Amino acid sequence: MKNVKIIIEFDGTDYKGWQVQPNDPSIQQEIEQRLMIVTKEFVRIHASGRTDAGVHAERMTANFEIEKETDLSRLKKSLNALLPDDITIIEMAEAPVGFHARKSAKQKIYEYRIFNRKDRSPFLRRYAWHIRKPLDIYSMKKAARFLIGEYDFTGFASVGSEVRTKVRTIYDIKIEKEGSDVTLTFVGSGFLKQMVRNIVGLLVQVGHGKFTAEFAEVVLVAKQIQKEYITAPPEGLFLKDVIY
Amino acid sequence: MKNVKIIIEFDGTDYKGWQVQPNDPSIQQEIEQRLMIVTKEFVRIHASGRTDAGVHAERMTANFEIEKETDLSRLKKSLNALLPDDITIIEMAEAPVGFHARKSAKQKIYEYRIFNRKDRSPFLRRYAWHIRKPLDIYSMKKAARFLIGEYDFTGFASVGSEVRTKVRTIYDIKIEKEGSDVTLTFVGSGFLKQMVRNIVGLLVQVGHGKFTAEFAEVVLVAKQIQKEYITAPPEGLFLKDVIY
Repeated sequence: MKNVKIIIEFDGTDYKGWQVQPNDPSIQQEIEQRLMIVTKEFVRIHASGRTDAGVHAERMTANFEIEKETDLSRLKKSLNALLPDDITIIEMAEAPVGFHARKSAKQKIYEYRIFNRKDRSPFLRRYAWHIRKPLDIYSMKKAARFLIGEYDFTGFASVGSEVRTKVRTIYDIKIEKEGSDVTLTFVGSGFLKQMVRNIVGLLVQVGHGKFTAEFAEVVLVAKQIQKEYITAPPEGLFLKDVIY
Repeated sequence: MKNVKIIIEFDGTDYKGWQVQPNDPSIQQEIEQRLMIVTKEFVRIHASGRTDAGVHAERMTANFEIEKETDLSRLKKSLNALLPDDITIIEMAEAPVGFHARKSAKQKIYEYRIFNRKDRSPFLRRYAWHIRKPLDIYSMKKAARFLIGEYDFTGFASVGSEVRTKVRTIYDIKIEKEGSDVTLTFVGSGFLKQMVRNIVGLLVQVGHGKFTAEFAEVVLVAKQIQKEYITAPPEGLFLKDVIY
């Protein structure tokens, strides 16, 4: 057997997220089905983590085991020919035996895109959160600074996060504005279910003056899942990269 | 009556172009229908020019006449609320009586986007021409230089161009490569039917070594509609701006 690492780019608009679901389309299922067509056997794919319904990825990483003699360059070509045009395998290479896309991951980078203009954009309707009212970027940056570090992020987790510990490290949150585009980049050891979208929702409300920047610290310290802030919609979220 | 100038951004993927067609969806019809709902009368919209099926626009300009007392800021809001999410009116303002979107136009700027990577992009499938084989940008630039100036562009017109003269001026063709993105920007006095896509098709074939750069001059001098080169597909073409 050989261990294979793949990097996948996908437009998540028409899927119920990465993970296989009983009755809904998922990225994982689309790939596993094609892999079965090509290899004539069922192969389980392990991703670096799940993504929610509607969330996109530029470099989702996954791994799977396959017969030793498989030609990977031909396999990649065959899979891409069979996959729908919103999913592309952009890299495929043999990985060390011990490599596991989830367990070996060191950092994850997410990007959240906001389109901040009065009128919606025909081109970004699937790829950004459209916000009409101007945002106070300075206050958003101030609020974001409270969240950089190693903390229990229970206050930013959504119901259904069943993990052993809710302690995560955020190494950086960068907020950039260029014209109507506001981009938030998150670098962390890992993120809880909907954590990035919950943080973005709160930061946007800070940017609209609904909360002061210090409210980010209040939620962090409270360590309770709560509903005072909004959750940003999935279409603006991109898994940019997974670092090993 | 007052003369109103509007600027429209649209994703042309799902339309048969700008102009009203008997049985197919068009941008013009979508806007005229909504304008009729709001104003209770049929208003004809004059655009700076037609765009082909599947072509996009960032700043298509048009004008129409309307009752003097109409509140334009409310009209714009009402229209955008009624329009599908792939068409947005981004500007609306009163224009001088003599202003005509087509007749008053001085220059047009088109952008053609190529995605030049082995594997297709899930995000650009509607917004760029996917070309797998690397392009020789230097040769493409060399070929483009033959086309800058005032010429009879019959050799780059498609059948069905029924205009008095096929003389046009191209002020500039810029070709830029950044990673996998190759962008061609055309500035001209106006363009014949499919002229930009025909030029891009020929330039790409020069970039692949099928023709030498000098072939651009050969086609120009021949002044005959011919089929030796390919026409670039519509999804990569954007009307960037119209200058008055």
